[in-house]
Amino acid sequence: RVNGARLWDSLEEMATTGPGLRGGCNRQTLTDEDAKGRALFKAWGEAAGMTLGIDRMGTMFFTRPGTDPDALPVYVGSHLDTQPTGGKYDGVLGVLGALEVVRSLNDLGVRTRHPIVVVNWTNEEGGRFAPAMLASGVFAGVHTLDYAYGRKDFDGKVFGDELKRIGWLGQEEVGARKMHAYFEYHIEQGPILEAEEKQIGVVTHCQGLWWLEFTLTGKEAHTGSTPMNMRVNAGLAMARIFELVQKVAMDSQPNAVGGVGQVKFSPNSRNVLPGTVVFTVDIRSPEQEKLDRMRAIIEAEAPKLCEPLGVRCAVEVVGHFDPVTFDPTLVSRVRSVTEKLGYSHMNLVSGAGHDACWAARVAPATMIMCPCEGGLSHNEDEKITPEWAAAGADVLLHAVLETAEI
Amino acid sequence: RVNGARLWDSLEEMATTGPGLRGGCNRQTLTDEDAKGRALFKAWGEAAGMTLGIDRMGTMFFTRPGTDPDALPVYVGSHLDTQPTGGKYDGVLGVLGALEVVRSLNDLGVRTRHPIVVVNWTNEEGGRFAPAMLASGVFAGVHTLDYAYGRKDFDGKVFGDELKRIGWLGQEEVGARKMHAYFEYHIEQGPILEAEEKQIGVVTHCQGLWWLEFTLTGKEAHTGSTPMNMRVNAGLAMARIFELVQKVAMDSQPNAVGGVGQVKFSPNSRNVLPGTVVFTVDIRSPEQEKLDRMRAIIEAEAPKLCEPLGVRCAVEVVGHFDPVTFDPTLVSRVRSVTEKLGYSHMNLVSGAGHDACWAARVAPATMIMCPCEGGLSHNEDEKITPEWAAAGADVLLHAVLETAEI
Ligand SMILES: NC(=O)NCCC(=O)O
Ligand SMILES: NC(=O)NCCC(=O)O
Repeated sequence: RVNGARLWDSLEEMATTGPGLRGGCNRQTLTDEDAKGRALFKAWGEAAGMTLGIDRMGTMFFTRPGTDPDALPVYVGSHLDTQPTGGKYDGVLGVLGALEVVRSLNDLGVRTRHPIVVVNWTNEEGGRFAPAMLASGVFAGVHTLDYAYGRKDFDGKVFGDELKRIGWLGQEEVGARKMHAYFEYHIEQGPILEAEEKQIGVVTHCQGLWWLEFTLTGKEAHTGSTPMNMRVNAGLAMARIFELVQKVAMDSQPNAVGGVGQVKFSPNSRNVLPGTVVFTVDIRSPEQEKLDRMRAIIEAEAPKLCEPLGVRCAVEVVGHFDPVTFDPTLVSRVRSVTEKLGYSHMNLVSGAGHDACWAARVAPATMIMCPCEGGLSHNEDEKITPEWAAAGADVLLHAVLETAEI
Repeated sequence: RVNGARLWDSLEEMATTGPGLRGGCNRQTLTDEDAKGRALFKAWGEAAGMTLGIDRMGTMFFTRPGTDPDALPVYVGSHLDTQPTGGKYDGVLGVLGALEVVRSLNDLGVRTRHPIVVVNWTNEEGGRFAPAMLASGVFAGVHTLDYAYGRKDFDGKVFGDELKRIGWLGQEEVGARKMHAYFEYHIEQGPILEAEEKQIGVVTHCQGLWWLEFTLTGKEAHTGSTPMNMRVNAGLAMARIFELVQKVAMDSQPNAVGGVGQVKFSPNSRNVLPGTVVFTVDIRSPEQEKLDRMRAIIEAEAPKLCEPLGVRCAVEVVGHFDPVTFDPTLVSRVRSVTEKLGYSHMNLVSGAGHDACWAARVAPATMIMCPCEGGLSHNEDEKITPEWAAAGADVLLHAVLETAEI
């Protein structure tokens, strides 16, 4: 078993590097807080005897050598970046859980045939720079490095510049590493495990996603002196598209969601009808056909809602992944070690996207989940218990051990 | 007649102190650009032989003495602040038109019995600090100085601090001045004069307004892993309130408008359902009863739209004025000098709010309007012609002269 108290202490300490305003975290990717979190993780990795490699996306790879010089490493990790008002566990648990696996192996003096690499992927959240899982996407060959470097945040700051600015631009070619297997441990971020009173989620699939960024062009005009029939009201068009997204998601039940988290009105002044409205629709389903049908309906219907208002409607895909099926051998292994350890479990489909989704394109991959209170995540009130955290780390330890071989 | 070319040159020069990105202006109240515009206006006022007084709201009063020491001054002015993506004429024409009146009287060596005071009111726009017409509102006793000093902008900056920071906090008690009359010259900001091919709008009334700031509280949660039936979606509630505002405005035709210009999602991340959504509904009508009925319907219905979604709905009034009737004597005077000058004219109800609306509570007041292309305002493309500008300034000159008496 891992040292649950040590894991918990590390989670609490990491949370201090990018504290939120209400007890959670604000350690957004490529901010000064991200740099602080990385520095702390670097110190811990080195203290555990590992060697750090950094690639040109800023992803951190900490290697614990194996005994067989020809064996490919087993990769284990997640991300340390958070939402602007995020929790302490989303992503962090997976990185520090992997570190705890290495610390426990060190305590026990256990060597493995395959090396073990603990990973902290850059920009998993995608809250600041769309798309999410950006560095693992470049690693898996889904995005080019140039595409990633050119991504812009809400204020127009550029990914490549910010990576250099915080001092974490590495030299390794992205994706050059070959993986024997990839494991990611994560909080569920949904309500199912808690409701079913299960300790471990054996993650078999991940639902797919489309992020559709709408740019609606209306006509900036005075809210008072512009008669109703002369308005080109992009805000009203947006409202109708929100309602459309809700309807499409509800019509696609079960196994589908849709919503909007980010909105930008320009010029955003109380007495000016917006000239431009930008927002991102987030739709997901584990069923490929349903997911693509939702997108097709929204893309077909949204312009019809804009047209009678005279509003111009443009759509750009700023994030996408297909539904993922994780490696059956690794999934079975997670289930069998969970049973051996005596933890209750059930199969899960991940509702959120994870770096494991991209890693699965270049290596056998899977995930392990623990419950979180009320299914709440992307919220400073995100909560798990030390027992939940430790149980998942135990499963991770044993799944990694069986894969890396003693 | 005034010197139209000089007026036009001054309008163009003022536009350089807070240039916009697309040919208009960004000289928002209490910014560094505002300070630059004030400094230029100060130089011009002093060059015209006037004496500057500044009150504790930062409003600038330039006095041209009269011949009768007991006669109250005739006030003439408007505002130099603009929207973030505003035009070159909204407000500016009224201040520089008043300056042109004084310059023309100087050219002609004409003295008046009543002094003439050229005014630049602070924060007319209200785009940065709600409510609009803030300084004239304090002047008229509608708001307290403390209320004004505590107003916050979108980033949480405080009005009183910003006024001090830009160096334009004056010592005069606000509202201590007594007015013989108040004139304000302004672009129409609506389409009627141009459509009717009239040179001058004789402004008889101004429509009233309510600014209702909604704060909707939902539950921050993951857009992917939160099932539809567990969402508390404040963004969706907002969309439904947008639709309600549109319906209420359309049901109140004619003589009513309603819309939303400013929206703030928190935390505003693509994969986080917003925990809080703040936006301001702007509704207006020249008919008091209709205006208040619109407000009542929106305040009654909005919570009913939020409730089934589990969203908490709070409303705060952040701006309000009743419909205004301008002084009949001054209105007739504007009409008669317009006829004497041979300009075409018609009666107008102002669609926008103006400092004249508050001044009308403490003095006989009225307004003069000139057309603007396509009725477009609060847009960098706002356009008028030098001829339109000069015609209104001629009317202003003669209306002021008749009131200030030779
Ligand atoms: N795990 C997680 O929240 N990832 C962010 C990407 C997503 O929105 O699913
Ligand atoms: N004239 C003008 O645009 N004033 C701003 C206040 C309002 O929104 O009416």
